[in-house]
Amino acid sequence: MEELVGLREGSSGKPVTLPELWGPCPRVRRGIRGGLEWLKQRLFCVGEDWYFLMALGVLMALISYTMNFAIGRVVRAHKWLYKEVGDGHLLRYLSWTVYPVALLSFSSGFSQSITPFSGGSGLPELKTMLSGVILEDYLDIKNFGAKVVGLSCTLATGSTIFLGKVGPFVHLSVMISAYLGHVRTKTMGESNSKAKELEMLTAAAAVGVATVFAAPFSGVLFSIEVMSSHFSVWNYWRGFFAATCGAFMFRLLSVFNSEQETITSIYKTSFRVDVPFDLPEIFFFVALGAICGVLSCVYLFCQRTFVRFIKTNRYTSKLLATSKPLYSALAALVLASITYPPGVGRFMASRLSMKEHLDTLFDNNSWALMTRNSSPPWPMEPDPQNLWFEWYHPRFTIFGTLAFFLVMKVALSFSCLFPIPHLISFALWTLLSLAMPGPWPELPHLGFGPAGAAAFSGAVTHSISTALLAFELTGQIVHALPVLMAVLAANAVSQNCQPSFYDGTIMAKKLPYLPWIRGRKLGSYPVIVEHFMNRTITTLAKDMPLEEVAKVVTSTDVIQYPLVESTESQTLVGTVEKTHLVQALQTVTPGQQSCLQDILTDGCPTQPVTLQLSPETSLYQTHNLFELLTLQSLFVTSRGRAVGSVSWVELKKAISTLINPPAPK
Amino acid sequence: MEELVGLREGSSGKPVTLPELWGPCPRVRRGIRGGLEWLKQRLFCVGEDWYFLMALGVLMALISYTMNFAIGRVVRAHKWLYKEVGDGHLLRYLSWTVYPVALLSFSSGFSQSITPFSGGSGLPELKTMLSGVILEDYLDIKNFGAKVVGLSCTLATGSTIFLGKVGPFVHLSVMISAYLGHVRTKTMGESNSKAKELEMLTAAAAVGVATVFAAPFSGVLFSIEVMSSHFSVWNYWRGFFAATCGAFMFRLLSVFNSEQETITSIYKTSFRVDVPFDLPEIFFFVALGAICGVLSCVYLFCQRTFVRFIKTNRYTSKLLATSKPLYSALAALVLASITYPPGVGRFMASRLSMKEHLDTLFDNNSWALMTRNSSPPWPMEPDPQNLWFEWYHPRFTIFGTLAFFLVMKVALSFSCLFPIPHLISFALWTLLSLAMPGPWPELPHLGFGPAGAAAFSGAVTHSISTALLAFELTGQIVHALPVLMAVLAANAVSQNCQPSFYDGTIMAKKLPYLPWIRGRKLGSYPVIVEHFMNRTITTLAKDMPLEEVAKVVTSTDVIQYPLVESTESQTLVGTVEKTHLVQALQTVTPGQQSCLQDILTDGCPTQPVTLQLSPETSLYQTHNLFELLTLQSLFVTSRGRAVGSVSWVELKKAISTLINPPAPK
Repeated sequence: MEELVGLREGSSGKPVTLPELWGPCPRVRRGIRGGLEWLKQRLFCVGEDWYFLMALGVLMALISYTMNFAIGRVVRAHKWLYKEVGDGHLLRYLSWTVYPVALLSFSSGFSQSITPFSGGSGLPELKTMLSGVILEDYLDIKNFGAKVVGLSCTLATGSTIFLGKVGPFVHLSVMISAYLGHVRTKTMGESNSKAKELEMLTAAAAVGVATVFAAPFSGVLFSIEVMSSHFSVWNYWRGFFAATCGAFMFRLLSVFNSEQETITSIYKTSFRVDVPFDLPEIFFFVALGAICGVLSCVYLFCQRTFVRFIKTNRYTSKLLATSKPLYSALAALVLASITYPPGVGRFMASRLSMKEHLDTLFDNNSWALMTRNSSPPWPMEPDPQNLWFEWYHPRFTIFGTLAFFLVMKVALSFSCLFPIPHLISFALWTLLSLAMPGPWPELPHLGFGPAGAAAFSGAVTHSISTALLAFELTGQIVHALPVLMAVLAANAVSQNCQPSFYDGTIMAKKLPYLPWIRGRKLGSYPVIVEHFMNRTITTLAKDMPLEEVAKVVTSTDVIQYPLVESTESQTLVGTVEKTHLVQALQTVTPGQQSCLQDILTDGCPTQPVTLQLSPETSLYQTHNLFELLTLQSLFVTSRGRAVGSVSWVELKKAISTLINPPAPK
Repeated sequence: MEELVGLREGSSGKPVTLPELWGPCPRVRRGIRGGLEWLKQRLFCVGEDWYFLMALGVLMALISYTMNFAIGRVVRAHKWLYKEVGDGHLLRYLSWTVYPVALLSFSSGFSQSITPFSGGSGLPELKTMLSGVILEDYLDIKNFGAKVVGLSCTLATGSTIFLGKVGPFVHLSVMISAYLGHVRTKTMGESNSKAKELEMLTAAAAVGVATVFAAPFSGVLFSIEVMSSHFSVWNYWRGFFAATCGAFMFRLLSVFNSEQETITSIYKTSFRVDVPFDLPEIFFFVALGAICGVLSCVYLFCQRTFVRFIKTNRYTSKLLATSKPLYSALAALVLASITYPPGVGRFMASRLSMKEHLDTLFDNNSWALMTRNSSPPWPMEPDPQNLWFEWYHPRFTIFGTLAFFLVMKVALSFSCLFPIPHLISFALWTLLSLAMPGPWPELPHLGFGPAGAAAFSGAVTHSISTALLAFELTGQIVHALPVLMAVLAANAVSQNCQPSFYDGTIMAKKLPYLPWIRGRKLGSYPVIVEHFMNRTITTLAKDMPLEEVAKVVTSTDVIQYPLVESTESQTLVGTVEKTHLVQALQTVTPGQQSCLQDILTDGCPTQPVTLQLSPETSLYQTHNLFELLTLQSLFVTSRGRAVGSVSWVELKKAISTLINPPAPK
């Protein structure tokens, strides 16, 4: 049906529809419509990227907050159950253990049944993706659901199982960002550019950290140092914007929920400001940092060995492959039995939740002094005013409980194949600083407890942002220099001895990666592309008969072929994709004698070669190019002739030959 | 003289010298020598880069501290003179003005006579250098002396002339690093690699900031965001290490000099920690941030206009060109007259030194409340306990003095062609937050004074690190979120409207630079190299007769020529430098008929082409390549033939055509 139109009185313009003509206040409505149009233009000229980043931050903050909230409730219910169940040891034991066993086996069964990618930290895979490798399905949105449920259930087991939250959250955030990107591509009809996608992933990594700890600065630094070897300042802006939105929203929610009066740091501390530390303490900071570095090397080594053992051992590998939920349930049962408070759990403060553990370790009272003269009895319930007292045992002393806690937790995190959480590093630092026979026994935790978390987790992940994280969490930055020095010392030790946790996992999982040319070894300079390029490339010449092309296509397994002018000249003119070639070959009527040139002119698409190496390009330069532009492979031409190709495989081999030269014969 | 040797008893090894044989404790000495040798090997296997970075940090810290110390003494002497000179107005006026006039004219005369490069901030030039352009002599060590003397004298004028210290210090640090690099190249005999040099310069920029403010984190962030458009994580480590060494040394010196008990933040503050700000205040933070952004745009615009006026105006340009010391002396006289305390200086707290200004503006007392009911008389001397009182004037009120201070200081910094110091931004924020008619009149300075400095100077320089700097300076980071949001708001406004201070200066000084493709405009994608490359390249063919080569060499003015296989095929085989060609041509006996190939085989060196573009490479990809690899120019080949070249000039033209498309005819 056509609409009726009319002309406005006195106007000679275009006709308008009757409903509009006869509606009330035509001018006002027109004005509003014009205003909205103008606003839309204004808003869109900013670039929808920024709305996208804001949406990402807000979404992640909502997810993080909701998850925290739900977990808190489940943990509280567990505590209530444990308290109410009475004094019978069997009931108590059951109420303590059934909860985590059920949660953990459900969590691992649920995520396993949906997708195998949702387990683990996820960061090593992300690192590989950001260097340009495409891991199919890894960022699929169905992984998201599995990971959220799995993570929530695991964290809801309370103090039984400790899980680092950063890795999973970064993975979640990246998945959300990839999904939003898909939605955008569909609705806006833009073509999906890979560069843009990678940018968004980097920003999403920053958001992941920022929404766990409400720490935008360290989120961005983390995404700089862990995620890639080169960083574009353009990403830096996006990262800051998205991380700030996320962190603000995350803290705002807790204010709205009346948990807090206003937006503050998560673990507010009150260390001395006037004289935060004595000058000689700096040396202890550095020494403890170095010790943390050594311990992190030991940890990394043990972790890798243990993972290898689990995967190669006959029983465990079978159990893991066939029935992961059963393995999880068994592990949970063992862990819960160990942490059962009236039993061994007594010696590892297992009545405290993860947050309470952190709160007590951030404490700035001198435990050594406070427990020197008195030995109060063990309270039936943790005393909310003196939670730290859970760490104390009259015969075992604080040293004993801390050391026992550390050993057990590290062993447990191994057995669950989980990454180590920051919490363990706090305990480590507390123990070290208490044990340090310094001339300052009255100083609690060597001034600044979070320094240990920064040093140890910095050493494990090869990063410095953990130092900044310690300040953002506590709201005090007066210890900037000593903590930074401790982190640097820890990193100096661990970077020289072990690959980082992420790199180690990448190697163990055999994901593709490009080794770093460490310290710009001068030895790498004289090596040129000619020495290591792959010389056996299959070129397709334009004057090749089609049968031969078909033979080549069926006998080789590459994605794209270099296209050369003629078999004789071998002058590179472009590339042609295998799928296109196969399609084109299928439409050719058989028996017709023709050459490749014909199907190219018939419309088989070719791509130009936009960048090419020379045989004289140095290894160093090639490595740089691959890293900076996140390339997969490049063709090598000499005077226009295609003479070879270089891909990650060749580069990696060349670099490893440089680092470990083959024994001379 | 040959040394006498002997054999050790019972040994069948190599003979040793007699003094060694007969010296005491041969074993111990051998052990020590072996140990030292081992230590040396150990130490050198770390890579001497780290020692170099440490030396850089320590040197800069020494320079920074010594300069501060000397300046402090000179300023104190000036104050003493002004106090002792009596009540006569003429004498007082003279003692107030002669000092800065003498210092400033000496400073500008001294540095002018040594080198013209030592003036100004130096950062714009550094930015250009880090993008790969070589500015001859700009990092020469004699500039260093001139800059140190000039800077010290200017800063020693006290509150009369305000100078941003960051820019000059970064320049100084980079000069030291370049000099150390030269020394190293000479002593170690290594070849000087450009990539390594640029890395060191970036680390040096971080050291520059860290040794002024003792703020390693923001130093590194500053070097990330201001110095280049891409950042290698490798540099990040170096930056942190060097900046930490510098900041630690800088603060250590002030402890050794008994100025402080231990290492703490420079401007310690004590804002409330429990409830650092009320939630609604965040909106004011963001709003004030946006206002700061708008004001920074105004400032940047005025500054550029003023510089252009000074340079084009007949009188001033003549004065500046012929007698800069005179100009400086005149400017200093005017400034000193204006700041003369009993005169107009009364209204701008000119009796305070720059450090005292900062101290008072960091104050967290509510000035508005404290001056509401009382109006004490103006003290003869500034009261050390209540320095802020200098800002108060009974009739002018605090608003008046602050506004007057702001206007005057901005105008003055224009007239001296100096960059604006952070101090002005503090005053701006204080004024804005006092003037904000909010429902919280009892809150001092809207919670956190340094936020203003962060927002305004962040907007002027287009950086976020200023936010982190505010926390490192004050030692409190509880305001992380609101300050970050204010800085982001300020940046959002200023980045959309004006180029940053550094970019503006680069444009005004007509330094070479590569425009940024803002927001990855999609319009830039379809443009390919073929559309904008320089097609008129002069190639030298191997079969060219020498006369023709000589003609080409004398008639063109390029540094290197593309070398092609033959005039007909134009297949690119390498490049040859003009200087080498000229040398080789001079040795050829004239009259002898030969071609270019002959002198090449005679030993005229050629370089291989390691990277080449195709005509189909996109503008976006080319831009990325140039930025990432800091290239100057690349040759374009099509099927091996050299068909053109692309350099910064072409890229810039192509990008500006995209941004401002030519009007269709």
